[in-house]
Amino acid sequence: MRIDEKDLRELVGSFEYFIKEKQDARLQHLLVSMHPSDIAAIINRIRKDEHRLYLFNLLDKEVASDTILKIDEAVREDLVELLEQEIITELVDEMDSDDATDFISELPEEMVEDVLKNVEQADAKEVIQLMHYPEDTAGGIMALEIVAVNKNATVDEAIREIRRKAEKVEEIYNVFVVDDETKLVGHVSVKELILVHGHTPITEIMETDIASVPVSMDQEEVANYARKYDLISVPVVDEEYRLLGRITIDDIIDVMEEEASEDLQRMAGITDEEELREPSALRIVRGRILWLVFGLLGGLWGAEVIKLFEHQIAKVAMLAIFIPVILSMGGSIGMQSSAIVVRGLATGEIDFKDIYKRLYKEIKVSLINGLALGFLIFIYAFVRAGTDDLGSTIQPLELSAVVGGSLIMVILVASIVGTTIPLLLKKINIDPALATGPFITTSNDIIALFIYFAMATSFLNI
Amino acid sequence: MRIDEKDLRELVGSFEYFIKEKQDARLQHLLVSMHPSDIAAIINRIRKDEHRLYLFNLLDKEVASDTILKIDEAVREDLVELLEQEIITELVDEMDSDDATDFISELPEEMVEDVLKNVEQADAKEVIQLMHYPEDTAGGIMALEIVAVNKNATVDEAIREIRRKAEKVEEIYNVFVVDDETKLVGHVSVKELILVHGHTPITEIMETDIASVPVSMDQEEVANYARKYDLISVPVVDEEYRLLGRITIDDIIDVMEEEASEDLQRMAGITDEEELREPSALRIVRGRILWLVFGLLGGLWGAEVIKLFEHQIAKVAMLAIFIPVILSMGGSIGMQSSAIVVRGLATGEIDFKDIYKRLYKEIKVSLINGLALGFLIFIYAFVRAGTDDLGSTIQPLELSAVVGGSLIMVILVASIVGTTIPLLLKKINIDPALATGPFITTSNDIIALFIYFAMATSFLNI
Repeated sequence: MRIDEKDLRELVGSFEYFIKEKQDARLQHLLVSMHPSDIAAIINRIRKDEHRLYLFNLLDKEVASDTILKIDEAVREDLVELLEQEIITELVDEMDSDDATDFISELPEEMVEDVLKNVEQADAKEVIQLMHYPEDTAGGIMALEIVAVNKNATVDEAIREIRRKAEKVEEIYNVFVVDDETKLVGHVSVKELILVHGHTPITEIMETDIASVPVSMDQEEVANYARKYDLISVPVVDEEYRLLGRITIDDIIDVMEEEASEDLQRMAGITDEEELREPSALRIVRGRILWLVFGLLGGLWGAEVIKLFEHQIAKVAMLAIFIPVILSMGGSIGMQSSAIVVRGLATGEIDFKDIYKRLYKEIKVSLINGLALGFLIFIYAFVRAGTDDLGSTIQPLELSAVVGGSLIMVILVASIVGTTIPLLLKKINIDPALATGPFITTSNDIIALFIYFAMATSFLNI
Repeated sequence: MRIDEKDLRELVGSFEYFIKEKQDARLQHLLVSMHPSDIAAIINRIRKDEHRLYLFNLLDKEVASDTILKIDEAVREDLVELLEQEIITELVDEMDSDDATDFISELPEEMVEDVLKNVEQADAKEVIQLMHYPEDTAGGIMALEIVAVNKNATVDEAIREIRRKAEKVEEIYNVFVVDDETKLVGHVSVKELILVHGHTPITEIMETDIASVPVSMDQEEVANYARKYDLISVPVVDEEYRLLGRITIDDIIDVMEEEASEDLQRMAGITDEEELREPSALRIVRGRILWLVFGLLGGLWGAEVIKLFEHQIAKVAMLAIFIPVILSMGGSIGMQSSAIVVRGLATGEIDFKDIYKRLYKEIKVSLINGLALGFLIFIYAFVRAGTDDLGSTIQPLELSAVVGGSLIMVILVASIVGTTIPLLLKKINIDPALATGPFITTSNDIIALFIYFAMATSFLNI
């Protein structure tokens, strides 16, 4: 039975009550038909650590093993600290190699060795092998549970291999075909296997158009690759094309979700990925404050720019009133231009070589936007200046022309900065999302102020 | 053979040259081993419409049909306009029902009827059925190509059904089991079918824990559902649980990609989804200008706020220099707080009921951030004011206390606004991403200015 998110929230109350009252029979009754993902959602929302632990200990091993992988990372860390090492070992024994590796990597260092000593030896060996690959590469997310047959096999032999592996490999959608050196030469879907006679040679029905990824490929690229070619299971190979493992589509989906969250957060100026249920305010601050301090320093730099023109402002205080609109336009334009580029870079649809094409388009767009918005602010400034005391030296028309003209300039420059920075960052291998949001906003702020006051002092008689 | 993105870019030049020279044999030679996704990537990058058409016409029907679905929407629209109706009909005949429906929905209205008249009647019926469902619901993305057997069937019968459907249904990962009223009662993976004897009743091995979605469910929810339960193929049912169709994982992945792009763009103030290769600058402007005008008006409102305090600024021009830093902090804090909430709402992990929990956490975080940043700006303002002529009425300590204090206030309020607005928007069924970015930034700007100047005039003797 699958439970609606809304019902889940309401269930949490019942769970907390029954846990407090230690009504195990009732809890078991609630748990028995629940999916591990739903149990994890409940545990995420239970407030007290000891209540979470109590509920978790009621689960049978197999369900517990699936459940713990679905719990939010921040909650899982706290829960794992309360679990006995013996139970952790049992949980790991139930996991696939990729999940076991991720799970063990998250454990406190002093625990890792003990757990690896106590899990089944074959599993430990696999985990140690997988731990060598960086977390965010194909090797870091692949599983070693695969079904592969030699190219001399028949369909019957492939089916026998599936049966042999059926218990260990839960999701089998296709069988990989390798040569005598375990190099990948093709693959067959399980569906194809049941369409033909058992004695058909596997090479006769296999697809030789192999979509494999190298073990060192970045996980975001792997996800883009799987999406592009509609793969349900991505074989991972070493430099000699020897088959090492496979990445299943559910892991690809997790990568996509993770990368999309990360990009959105980074665009918003959060450096460390922040979990929704992160309990520590200090850890949240740590992820957020870096760009805030940067923004503060940028803002103070902006203050220095204004300071340069303090005397002019003292003479024509009206100059100050356009600061917010100039800043907000520069910021908005920068965000729009960069969002398109950051996303295009993330999905692999553009790269640095597209810079001229992108700039050409953005400049066209920002000229149109600039003329439209510049005209609006010109009208406003003209009307406003007419009702205001500008001093004897400035005409309303002059002032409004300067405001409108500098807005057009600001928009043009902001879109160029917003387009160029992420492409440059990518070029030098810095995640464009990481620096784009706050960096572009801050530099656009300073540039915008400078353009505005420079134009004001050059063209106005102040 | 799969081609690296970088090599693809270089291939485009060769393609354009051979097309210009009409060297069909060479083009065919290049195309023969290419995946439709790669051919689509080439066509996306070819500049001239007639060159695209030339290349497209060289493809055989089946490849052409797969390729056109992979071409970027903006490019596809232009290409379709150049294709003869007869060819379009042939392309549609090759497509699955869900792809055919999407493709036909994109056609110019006057074409739709003609195409529907000319495709195979069974296909036309399916498309017409699917066109009834809103585009962004489960019904709008499902395909009617499924393999289902009655609950009285044996495993052998299920395998026979797979063979019967094998040509029409390309991807078969599981067989759905229905009762006499076609209500969904279970499912079996193809792998399970080959593990048991052929005369085993299907009910004996089927999973009865059915993860189906109602036909009206929003596509983003469907994607979250599939991700939560690791589904590879999501059955779609009507209100009486009758099986209507299925959504395969590759379509789920497309939905995730689409929603992530949309959210990122909307957070950046782009209302209509903008395609990377959108050729029309005017169409890009149309998607971007709405929030820019809104931001401009907000900025002008900010101007009015400053105008209220024009006399104070004329007296103490130094007040103006802190405007950028106050604005940029309000904006950054608002983005950070809202990004977390917008993403949590998109993945279904939080809803309106979590508002107090979120606010409590954000207030804690922003108090820490506020104190840290407020202290920094206090120091700066104190040092700066010491070297500046403040007039006789204000002490440096007073001024810096006001600047630091109002920054703390601004940070606190900005995080509350950033947290509350997306939750409120979701509550009244407006996409939180749509309004969050520019709306929060703009309101925070105005609020921040007001806080700053109100505090300055209240506490300083000006």
